[in-house]
Amino acid sequence: MAQTGLNMSRRIRRTPYTGRAEAHGVRGYSVVNHMLLPKAYAASVEEDYWHLREHVQVWDVGCQRQVQVTGPDAAELVQLMTPRDLRRIPDGQGLYIPLIDEHAGMINDPVLLKLEDDKFWLSIADSDVLLFAKGIAFGRGLDVLVEEPDVFPLAVQGPKAETLMTELFGDEIAALPYFGFGTFDMLGTRQVIARSGYSKQGGFEIYLEGGHLGGALWDLVWEAGRALDIRPGCPNLIERIEGGLMSYGNEFTRANNPLECGFKRYCHLEDGIDYIGREALLKIAEDGPERHIMGVTFGGEALSGVAVPLAVMAEDGTVIGEVTSGIWSPRLGCNVGMSMIARGHWDAGTRITVRDTDGKLRDGTVSSLPF
Amino acid sequence: MAQTGLNMSRRIRRTPYTGRAEAHGVRGYSVVNHMLLPKAYAASVEEDYWHLREHVQVWDVGCQRQVQVTGPDAAELVQLMTPRDLRRIPDGQGLYIPLIDEHAGMINDPVLLKLEDDKFWLSIADSDVLLFAKGIAFGRGLDVLVEEPDVFPLAVQGPKAETLMTELFGDEIAALPYFGFGTFDMLGTRQVIARSGYSKQGGFEIYLEGGHLGGALWDLVWEAGRALDIRPGCPNLIERIEGGLMSYGNEFTRANNPLECGFKRYCHLEDGIDYIGREALLKIAEDGPERHIMGVTFGGEALSGVAVPLAVMAEDGTVIGEVTSGIWSPRLGCNVGMSMIARGHWDAGTRITVRDTDGKLRDGTVSSLPF
Repeated sequence: MAQTGLNMSRRIRRTPYTGRAEAHGVRGYSVVNHMLLPKAYAASVEEDYWHLREHVQVWDVGCQRQVQVTGPDAAELVQLMTPRDLRRIPDGQGLYIPLIDEHAGMINDPVLLKLEDDKFWLSIADSDVLLFAKGIAFGRGLDVLVEEPDVFPLAVQGPKAETLMTELFGDEIAALPYFGFGTFDMLGTRQVIARSGYSKQGGFEIYLEGGHLGGALWDLVWEAGRALDIRPGCPNLIERIEGGLMSYGNEFTRANNPLECGFKRYCHLEDGIDYIGREALLKIAEDGPERHIMGVTFGGEALSGVAVPLAVMAEDGTVIGEVTSGIWSPRLGCNVGMSMIARGHWDAGTRITVRDTDGKLRDGTVSSLPF
Repeated sequence: MAQTGLNMSRRIRRTPYTGRAEAHGVRGYSVVNHMLLPKAYAASVEEDYWHLREHVQVWDVGCQRQVQVTGPDAAELVQLMTPRDLRRIPDGQGLYIPLIDEHAGMINDPVLLKLEDDKFWLSIADSDVLLFAKGIAFGRGLDVLVEEPDVFPLAVQGPKAETLMTELFGDEIAALPYFGFGTFDMLGTRQVIARSGYSKQGGFEIYLEGGHLGGALWDLVWEAGRALDIRPGCPNLIERIEGGLMSYGNEFTRANNPLECGFKRYCHLEDGIDYIGREALLKIAEDGPERHIMGVTFGGEALSGVAVPLAVMAEDGTVIGEVTSGIWSPRLGCNVGMSMIARGHWDAGTRITVRDTDGKLRDGTVSSLPF
């Protein structure tokens, strides 16, 4: 992946784990929610990929900021922000919810934790959902508090994550379903842990409340992981793309609606609930989306990443999409990427070409996701 | 300034000028509004400082995104977001406006351009004001469109900026008052130019509408600047601090109110206008702010920047603030920084100590701003 220098300042906030990441030799970051996200340690992306698929890693994902909504109108405010029907949320079950604006454009795609009837956390991707929520609350005169609590997720990912977490927190944690969460004793506190994370290798996210405990939590996980070949890690570009995990700002933006993103099952299109963008979304559903997120495989030299989207073309040269994330897959032996693909071209198996940054054309094929 | 690697992705958006910045050897960025801000070229911060004070520079500040508010209720929406009285804005006059939330916490500090009675641009610092505005508009049912237009500011800064801009746009541009703006012919289009910018050395910002013209505009400015020793530049940390120019996310955050930031003259505290946070702001005004932004000068080794705020202590050891931006001033021969300073300690001349990242104490003094 292309990398250049990042100048540090207070505005690019550190997490409670940044010191540990530095001690482990972090050599590259991204910036998410005005906060550092480690993106590279000593290992290459490919070494890191194989390790993540076989062992266990600890990830500083403190940048997954929580937007905490509390108060008598909290449920109403959260529902206004998403087309997903929130009327019956099972206890202890996190929900992936698309947030949209008045044009049904994607605002964010957080995981929602309903902690109490009047207390919610939205664990957000890279946009200031807090300001969106504050604006709506003010405009509607809702009786809520919208805050960024002192909560910083730490992820434990990989096939050995369950072994590690069971050692620390007992068998109860192994009973958590996918996206399920519960509270567990830790460092003299009770903390929320969910079976979730930004990989397809299994794992957990600890929603640490109390940033001052960050170093102690990292060390706790690290010590328990020593026998399991634990390493510091981060969302891995190869694994993420192979797994079809989209990234807000990369695969989709406010220019995309949730139907294009494959979120139809999270969109309530009947009567019964009120949310921003409902009319626009109904219209899009009626017409059918004009594009849809798909995988693409393509040949040529091994890509190390995509900083500038690569045009995707039909056989007649028409531009039908752009690869927004892409990299060489050592397992599949080709480049893999994700692209919105125009209607009429999105069937898996469709032959396409991808235009390289230097103008060269590479033959490729539309694929379903995950690869 | 501490620097490490930045991993590139589409989410960290390029500007229309990024290619030119790369061609000029940019070697470090910050990220503002999910977009690249060049922060370092070949010259050291100090070399760049002296050059900026004597010559002219072209800055890629495309990251100063515009939030465009249009429609019959546009003026109402913009007024709701700020305590500054917007009832009488002189034509062609940009206004610096603090934006606050319901607790009177700072949301952003944009420059507002009123382009027409029902068309406004907010040229923002680093937070998603667009989402705040959309939320309020939805909640209140306002008849507005809130969008991010295809507008990317390019700054021309330094004492020779007026010579350069006059050559390109004629004498009319020299008549612009501070923060005044007008429209000028450029590359076959009409474009907004303001006398403004994030330095105290004078200069202009071209609000280029049409990102595809970015390269051509950069080249136009560059050619006109050759005889004036033009260089690619960026907000300079030494010059910014000496000039007392605060930065949202650094000197102040949502935890600070506008009175602490020295924005009292932008706060309408009488009856007559309605805005978010008015009650909270009135209460703060009544009690008086608990801290205020000030300068601090301090000794010891030359600082190259501040990534983690440095505690500021009174003579009895009480923590009374923290240096959020700081650097060695070659002109003043000491370190200079900015800090919120607690009430009772903020008089210029008050002796303080600054605690270094390694725990060492440095003697210093509270100063007025600018230095």
